[in-house]
Amino acid sequence: MAVTRGRFITLEGGEGAGKSTQIRLLADALAGCGKEVVVTREPGGSKGAEEIRALLVSGETGRWGPVTEALLHTAARRDHLERTVWPALDAGRWVICDRFFDSTMAYQGYGLGLGRELIGVLQATALGDFRPDLTLILDIPVESGLARANARRGGEDRYERMDLDFHRRLRDGFLDIAAREPGRCAVIDASHPVEAVQASVLDAVTRRLGVTIS
Amino acid sequence: MAVTRGRFITLEGGEGAGKSTQIRLLADALAGCGKEVVVTREPGGSKGAEEIRALLVSGETGRWGPVTEALLHTAARRDHLERTVWPALDAGRWVICDRFFDSTMAYQGYGLGLGRELIGVLQATALGDFRPDLTLILDIPVESGLARANARRGGEDRYERMDLDFHRRLRDGFLDIAAREPGRCAVIDASHPVEAVQASVLDAVTRRLGVTIS
Ligand SMILES: Nc1ncnc2c1ncn2[C@@H]1O[C@H](COP(=O)(O)OP(=O)(O)OP(=O)(O)O)[C@@H](O)[C@H]1O
Ligand SMILES: Nc1ncnc2c1ncn2[C@@H]1O[C@H](COP(=O)(O)OP(=O)(O)OP(=O)(O)O)[C@@H](O)[C@H]1O
Ligand SMILES: [Mg+2]
Ligand SMILES: [Mg+2]
Repeated sequence: MAVTRGRFITLEGGEGAGKSTQIRLLADALAGCGKEVVVTREPGGSKGAEEIRALLVSGETGRWGPVTEALLHTAARRDHLERTVWPALDAGRWVICDRFFDSTMAYQGYGLGLGRELIGVLQATALGDFRPDLTLILDIPVESGLARANARRGGEDRYERMDLDFHRRLRDGFLDIAAREPGRCAVIDASHPVEAVQASVLDAVTRRLGVTIS
Repeated sequence: MAVTRGRFITLEGGEGAGKSTQIRLLADALAGCGKEVVVTREPGGSKGAEEIRALLVSGETGRWGPVTEALLHTAARRDHLERTVWPALDAGRWVICDRFFDSTMAYQGYGLGLGRELIGVLQATALGDFRPDLTLILDIPVESGLARANARRGGEDRYERMDLDFHRRLRDGFLDIAAREPGRCAVIDASHPVEAVQASVLDAVTRRLGVTIS
């Protein structure tokens, strides 16, 4: 009997929007209704991609030029897809990913000014026609997100230290991406308490992917 | 007074063709006639690019998929250009580079079968309109090159361990690249003794770039 291909859900949004928090809750909910769930993240999520991640997330803000940075993210993404995401989907698992290509578009395309076209070419190289089944964009005012992120600051804070204007371009970028692809993307108001955001997330997954989560 | 921009010379060819040997001799010759010379290499040649190189040249043969590998090479190239090559050329230096984008085209495009189009798109991302002033393609039968390379084998031998057919596609790829861009590329018969190859190299540099090397 052929295995039904799993679904690929990505969570996107600025620093501290609550992506990791909501992914844990969503993974539990999907597992609770019998799905085999794989939680992963970008950059990273496979052995090679995690090594590339280490180059990206530490060191000085100006360590990589924007084009180099976009290329490194795209390289990590391709490895992650080949080694982790595609095999899991083929095996019927549901894959939830903490950031995916919309983050490259938002950070490098909008935030660092490389533009949609260059990033689009790189996405085509890494993904071909592959796209997430659903992308949840957690939207929150920049200051609130950074305040949340600061509270649990670790060493991987190279992006968080960039200026406020950068984070505003990022937020506007994510909203523009959602407006351009309303069939794939759902914008979630992430400024509410955890439980309220969780309810919006489960509602979007239920309606968009046709699963019933009790 | 404005500084005259330097020239950018790349040496290409399979393993053991004699690129590093000829680069040392060419650098000495150019320095001997008063040029400020920078010798560099790919992948690598800048702090960030050398870190990416470390991911590329060690480990198992199948460590990276071909698309990921091409993206990593392109990321390293962009860093190398921004941090090393372009500043040196702007300062009037002559830059000689051990492998450049023709190696990505030959190894990933021809050798690993990704094709000219995908690699061309990545080159456009990293280089824009920038091109070497002269590319010397050192051509040698595959077996002779590998025999030379084996004699001084170190730990960075991930490509050398690939099969003979791969190395044949590589050689044919380099010759095809040269045939498509005869204005930029000069094919050098590298099967002769060091001094004879050196004479061909100096002759090509003299004629193509209009310098007199005594
Ligand atoms: N809805 C919420 N209300 C208040 N605090 C929250 C909410 N969601 C998450 N937090 C807290 O905010 C901080 C950031 O949350 P989380 O790590 O989930 O965000 P993130 O989007 O994954 O951030 P990053 O982009 O930095 O990985 C955590 O300390 C978390 O407990
Ligand atoms: N013309 C030549 N005739 C005989 N041996 C040579 C010649 N040129 C170089 N060699 C020797 O062959 C070996 C490989 O040369 P070299 O390191 O210059 O090649 P390369 O193209 O840089 O190789 P790689 O791609 O592995 O870096 C060295 O031991 C070198 O001394
Ligand atoms: Mg997180
Ligand atoms: Mg060499």
